[in-house]
Amino acid sequence: MIIDVLSIFPSFFSGPLNESLLGKAISQGLIRVRVHDIRKYARDKHRTVDDRPYGGGAGMVMKPEPIVEAIEDLQKESPRGTVILLSPQGEVFTQATARELSGLPRIILVCGRYEGIDARVLNFVDRELSIGDYVLSGGEPAALVVIDAVSRLIPGVVGNLASVRSESFEEGLLEYPQYTRPRIFRGLPVPDVLISGNHEAVKRWRRSQALLLTKLRRPDLFERLKLSDEDLELLREAERAMERESSGEY
Amino acid sequence: MIIDVLSIFPSFFSGPLNESLLGKAISQGLIRVRVHDIRKYARDKHRTVDDRPYGGGAGMVMKPEPIVEAIEDLQKESPRGTVILLSPQGEVFTQATARELSGLPRIILVCGRYEGIDARVLNFVDRELSIGDYVLSGGEPAALVVIDAVSRLIPGVVGNLASVRSESFEEGLLEYPQYTRPRIFRGLPVPDVLISGNHEAVKRWRRSQALLLTKLRRPDLFERLKLSDEDLELLREAERAMERESSGEY
Repeated sequence: MIIDVLSIFPSFFSGPLNESLLGKAISQGLIRVRVHDIRKYARDKHRTVDDRPYGGGAGMVMKPEPIVEAIEDLQKESPRGTVILLSPQGEVFTQATARELSGLPRIILVCGRYEGIDARVLNFVDRELSIGDYVLSGGEPAALVVIDAVSRLIPGVVGNLASVRSESFEEGLLEYPQYTRPRIFRGLPVPDVLISGNHEAVKRWRRSQALLLTKLRRPDLFERLKLSDEDLELLREAERAMERESSGEY
Repeated sequence: MIIDVLSIFPSFFSGPLNESLLGKAISQGLIRVRVHDIRKYARDKHRTVDDRPYGGGAGMVMKPEPIVEAIEDLQKESPRGTVILLSPQGEVFTQATARELSGLPRIILVCGRYEGIDARVLNFVDRELSIGDYVLSGGEPAALVVIDAVSRLIPGVVGNLASVRSESFEEGLLEYPQYTRPRIFRGLPVPDVLISGNHEAVKRWRRSQALLLTKLRRPDLFERLKLSDEDLELLREAERAMERESSGEY
């Protein structure tokens, strides 16, 4: 997969693209990320990329020409990229979007100032995505989030595919709690069931905890779940156990 | 404001913290961001920070000791930091959370692998935050999003405070479309009202567009708005104008 990024701050990406999972995926050739400077497409000698808004108001607005010309220049190469503008007005980026994008041969991520970008640029992009209901200084951190979430779904990037499949949001559930050594840390023990060696019991406990966590923390996600009879039973058990614990009974 | 970051990939932050608004805010001393390597707190000679999960399963889980010891080490300094773990199971980070955090003297952002972190670490953090319903390889891009969204709310970081107040999510509305020069770009004109010089008309148009955009793109946000009679009238006008345009009438 090829990911092109258009930004007025190309050096922003130097650290992130060399580190961690992303850096490894790039060095192994599993993804190719190319960062392009929008300023290169500005035509005047000061390389101006923004101007004051029509109608007045605070802040500057990014001009349409350098961005659109940069997109057109990148599209001269094949395969054609799906052009995505990161902006607070976009549709909400979710794990389902990440999965969808991970199947594309090429995406072009356009980072604008969040303060404002000329609205006519939207006529030249395929999608507008928002990574959450907050305002950033620019699209750069958002592009990084999209690159990370999408890359790790590309086969080979995360070592074990099973690990990707069982995690938060893949089924609309938050992930169950994880534990590793030591068995007792500052007086806090690992739950007995995880040490029991009973795989069926471990599986049931993890499912029950994922259901309970989702219900308590994210009622919005919980509402959309389609629960089996077994799920409902597991959840009731987990809720009873929680009540017993909080009332001091064991 | 002081922001401490705990990560196993400290170099991830080098580009982002030197660039753009964030870099400027740091060099002007408006915020202080310090990145600490969790591995420094691992005690064995291989600097192990993770181990296999109890109960089996794919992937590795971050051990509790290095993270908790790092937090405790940072808390020896004053002012005491609010400890925030970035994780997909956390409460959803929004503009309201950003505003709340921007009032704190110090936050400590803990980046774990998203694949898993020992659940007992939660006993040592104040909050668990998720930047959206997708899975990242680690908390690093999420920490960057929090740093960016929070920093720009600190007085002095964004030049014009009015610009921060009128933008997306601050009132539960998406922002209106912005335009700058040229007046006609590839045959697409700037809306006449913005060039009219009539400030009241510009204000009404912008409000109507913000309302319309929010209704069309984010019915979930729109539902929660408290609209005035004037808002309802502006919205009806904007909807009628949109219908006329799409039916070819002018």
